[in-house]
Amino acid sequence: MARSLFISFEGIDGSGKSTQARRLHDSLRARGLDPVLTREPGGSPGAEEIRQLLLTGDTARWSAETELLLFTAARRDHLERTIGPALEAGRPVITDRFADSTRVYQGATRGDLRDMVDRLHALTIGTEPDLTFLIDMDPATALARGLARGSGEDRFEEMGLGFQQTLRAGFLELAAASPDRFRVIDGDRAPEALAREIAAIALPRLGLAP
Amino acid sequence: MARSLFISFEGIDGSGKSTQARRLHDSLRARGLDPVLTREPGGSPGAEEIRQLLLTGDTARWSAETELLLFTAARRDHLERTIGPALEAGRPVITDRFADSTRVYQGATRGDLRDMVDRLHALTIGTEPDLTFLIDMDPATALARGLARGSGEDRFEEMGLGFQQTLRAGFLELAAASPDRFRVIDGDRAPEALAREIAAIALPRLGLAP
Ligand SMILES: Nc1ncnc2c1ncn2[C@@H]1O[C@H](COP(=O)(O)OP(=O)(O)OP(=O)(O)O)[C@@H](O)[C@H]1O
Ligand SMILES: Nc1ncnc2c1ncn2[C@@H]1O[C@H](COP(=O)(O)OP(=O)(O)OP(=O)(O)O)[C@@H](O)[C@H]1O
Ligand SMILES: [Mg+2]
Ligand SMILES: [Mg+2]
Repeated sequence: MARSLFISFEGIDGSGKSTQARRLHDSLRARGLDPVLTREPGGSPGAEEIRQLLLTGDTARWSAETELLLFTAARRDHLERTIGPALEAGRPVITDRFADSTRVYQGATRGDLRDMVDRLHALTIGTEPDLTFLIDMDPATALARGLARGSGEDRFEEMGLGFQQTLRAGFLELAAASPDRFRVIDGDRAPEALAREIAAIALPRLGLAP
Repeated sequence: MARSLFISFEGIDGSGKSTQARRLHDSLRARGLDPVLTREPGGSPGAEEIRQLLLTGDTARWSAETELLLFTAARRDHLERTIGPALEAGRPVITDRFADSTRVYQGATRGDLRDMVDRLHALTIGTEPDLTFLIDMDPATALARGLARGSGEDRFEEMGLGFQQTLRAGFLELAAASPDRFRVIDGDRAPEALAREIAAIALPRLGLAP
């Protein structure tokens, strides 16, 4: 059984990652494949438990370094227990966020730890997705969506639009550095238009006509 | 305020680490110092929580690699919250086990991960004790002590005497590789004799007459 395709969705808050991950999952199923839809943080029972540890207590509970080690432990578990076995069984894996999110958020909040992020990843994770869709869009437009659904506002207000702009630039920088892995998708369109473009890229990689 | 001395005790199960760590702690207090006695795994509230995560569930719950990341996160927390602040405040720190135990146990159980242990340590911990007492002794004699106290037997039976012999060799190898940091103490003597030798080495390092 050949190892299947590992696909990730990345982008700023509210850019439509979860929407498009779900749509791609559904369209692969419709084509007769048996894809796995997963997400980070979390994605396996162990990773969820580690995540709980990170969410309990006050914010100064863990240092950025300890938090990074815990996130990496969770990702290792997610990879070993969910992603790896599915790929080995020939099932395509679609994850809503993966290591690129850590790189970009860490770069924006504790830039001095970017090197530690990369070294930890190389040492204990190693794997990158085969294909990463970066849904790119103006944070102000993503914010308006959040206002519409009445849930994203808090997060934007907490972090600020400027912070989202820094994240956007960070994602675009990663995409520019790994053009073979990334596909940058213009997120400021109807969901159907994005889904069509994404399927047209992903399906041939899975041996299917788009 | 000058940074104080960071001391660790290492050795096989039942060799007398906890006994000697406590005695050194007491003798430093008797000399008017304000030492901190701590231990691994654990040693800070966060590290204890991570440890609980490691202890729950069945044995195949976490892979060796995830476990190593979690242990390292716990050590980082222990270092940041307990050891570091005490040393900075001029208080000597005595820890019952530290990174050498991970190196030796990992070397004995998953030798292929020794390199990951060292790299993770260099990347996220960095610090070594200033002085490490390796209490060295024949595992069979340590086992007899355990039988006497009626508690150590299980662990020895679980792992086997041969495993303890492998650990002993591992500790001696580390000591040989870092002769400036390690002091090898013959553990097969009365506790008072060990305590006297240990104090004679530690006290001058703290500016006290032995
Ligand atoms: N192309 C689109 N056009 C307009 N609205 C969209 C589009 N895609 C998603 N939305 C809506 O925008 C909101 C955010 O979408 P979604 O939850 O998929 O984004 P996300 O990137 O996963 O966000 P988060 O970072 O919060 O997980 C949702 O209310 C969703 O229905
Ligand atoms: N020098 C000694 N001679 C005889 N018995 C000793 C000596 N030191 C300690 N003991 C006894 O041996 C047992 C093990 O000692 P201790 O708990 O200090 O060892 P340890 O290295 O901390 O063990 P563990 O690996 O279980 O933590 C205890 O019952 C202790 O009282
Ligand atoms: Mg989402
Ligand atoms: Mg002990």
